[in-house]
Amino acid sequence: MYSRTTAVEIQFGDCDPAGIVYYPNYFRFFDNATAGLLSAVFAMHKRNWLEHYGILGIPMVDTGARFIRPSSFGDVVEIRSEIAELGRSSFGVKHSLLRDGELAIEAHEKRVWVVKGEDGGIRSAPLPDEVRRLLGQDA
Amino acid sequence: MYSRTTAVEIQFGDCDPAGIVYYPNYFRFFDNATAGLLSAVFAMHKRNWLEHYGILGIPMVDTGARFIRPSSFGDVVEIRSEIAELGRSSFGVKHSLLRDGELAIEAHEKRVWVVKGEDGGIRSAPLPDEVRRLLGQDA
Amino acid sequence: MYSRTTAVEIQFGDCDPAGIVYYPNYFRFFDNATAGLLSAVFAMHKRNWLEHYGILGIPMVDTGARFIRPSSFGDVVEIRSEIAELGRSSFGVKHSLLRDGELAIEAHEKRVWVVKGEDGGIRSAPLPDEVRRLLGQDA
Amino acid sequence: MYSRTTAVEIQFGDCDPAGIVYYPNYFRFFDNATAGLLSAVFAMHKRNWLEHYGILGIPMVDTGARFIRPSSFGDVVEIRSEIAELGRSSFGVKHSLLRDGELAIEAHEKRVWVVKGEDGGIRSAPLPDEVRRLLGQDA
Repeated sequence: MYSRTTAVEIQFGDCDPAGIVYYPNYFRFFDNATAGLLSAVFAMHKRNWLEHYGILGIPMVDTGARFIRPSSFGDVVEIRSEIAELGRSSFGVKHSLLRDGELAIEAHEKRVWVVKGEDGGIRSAPLPDEVRRLLGQDA
Repeated sequence: MYSRTTAVEIQFGDCDPAGIVYYPNYFRFFDNATAGLLSAVFAMHKRNWLEHYGILGIPMVDTGARFIRPSSFGDVVEIRSEIAELGRSSFGVKHSLLRDGELAIEAHEKRVWVVKGEDGGIRSAPLPDEVRRLLGQDA
Repeated sequence: MYSRTTAVEIQFGDCDPAGIVYYPNYFRFFDNATAGLLSAVFAMHKRNWLEHYGILGIPMVDTGARFIRPSSFGDVVEIRSEIAELGRSSFGVKHSLLRDGELAIEAHEKRVWVVKGEDGGIRSAPLPDEVRRLLGQDA
Repeated sequence: MYSRTTAVEIQFGDCDPAGIVYYPNYFRFFDNATAGLLSAVFAMHKRNWLEHYGILGIPMVDTGARFIRPSSFGDVVEIRSEIAELGRSSFGVKHSLLRDGELAIEAHEKRVWVVKGEDGGIRSAPLPDEVRRLLGQDA
């Protein structure tokens, strides 16, 4: 399925007193990576595809990460992100973060396709066929 | 004018590889302190006074800080915040952050009272008399 | 095993343009909760127990969260944290975040007891008996 | 004096419930910009010039910003940073953040050249001649 690799330069303020990336920041990197992945898939910025598909967002329902080796200020890490699973109204993403070419973190996430409900609240909605086709393509 | 003191416990993730608070986080603390100050002044949570006064927010237009001594993980600092100035459609706040009873940071900010304009954009609006009276009281 | 509940007030800056907590911030809350849990277990601040036990830290090796309902600015959420598992040189923690008394997030984490190695690097070390006993007690 | 321009893409998580960049995050951007500026001046990464010049860091002693127009998710802003002032053991930096070519924020900062003191503490030290010359050059 669709995949994309981006580079992130670790900044001083991303790191903690142990001198390594404060791990909650990795989830920020992964969220950015997923936004970038979908923007590449849909060939438009997230600001636009939210509107284009008439959705409120793609909220996270489940995420996790396994931390294999730390990264530090000045490291330029690579995040390879790929669509991992297509549900009826949800999809999965896998992220592999590499430092110096070696796997440093493996992460996964599950997100839901969410629209405004008739009652003004939010509810999940089936992935449109076009979205399913775009996410499912190889790239 | 109105003032209020709160305590903030410095967390591990607030600090950087030098072992001290990463300074952008202080602005987060000060923003929280201003929200708390106005919630005390108005005797309702910010969620409610935004609606009560029909405003979109109180965006920052100018802020600055002088850093006198650093703080570290585990320090419990005190932030004394006070209304410092009342303009026509803006107000100032001063924050003094103390560690172990000694002044560690002096900060100031200027915020604008902002409503939705007729054109759908945003524009500043005069501080309502009630707001002016509440902010101006001693406490 | 040992458990502890803390309250966190959601701040404006914790939330994203969807008006709900930006999920990476929850991991910051959980990291703080674990530090607080161990400080309660060891009856001293993390600054002190790192030194007391001669360790470099308790780095995260695996974490995950399931997001059941969102929280927003002004919500005061409860985080119940408990030691969930005792390994040879690692331990697990479970966090349950409640909003209005209802389960909003379930999270888990696995951390390693880490000391400085003979070569100047870092290596895991067995949990000391005292630590094992303290973490394992009911509270 | 030395100047440098970088681009920053505003991410979803940089923004607050008002849909605009949460202002403390701008200080994070400016801190990164200053690190990048000095790395360009010194032709080596901050990790290396800290060691090369035998300093502990360049802590912030004073900063401020004037917010003229907001930025939002997806905006790519330009930050032009320049050395603004050379003191005996400190230097100033000015940042101009532009969105769509228009000035959105003006910020300034003052940082101190800091070494380890004889007593193990930290103290300011005069800028080395080479540093003074490099910071003072036009570029």
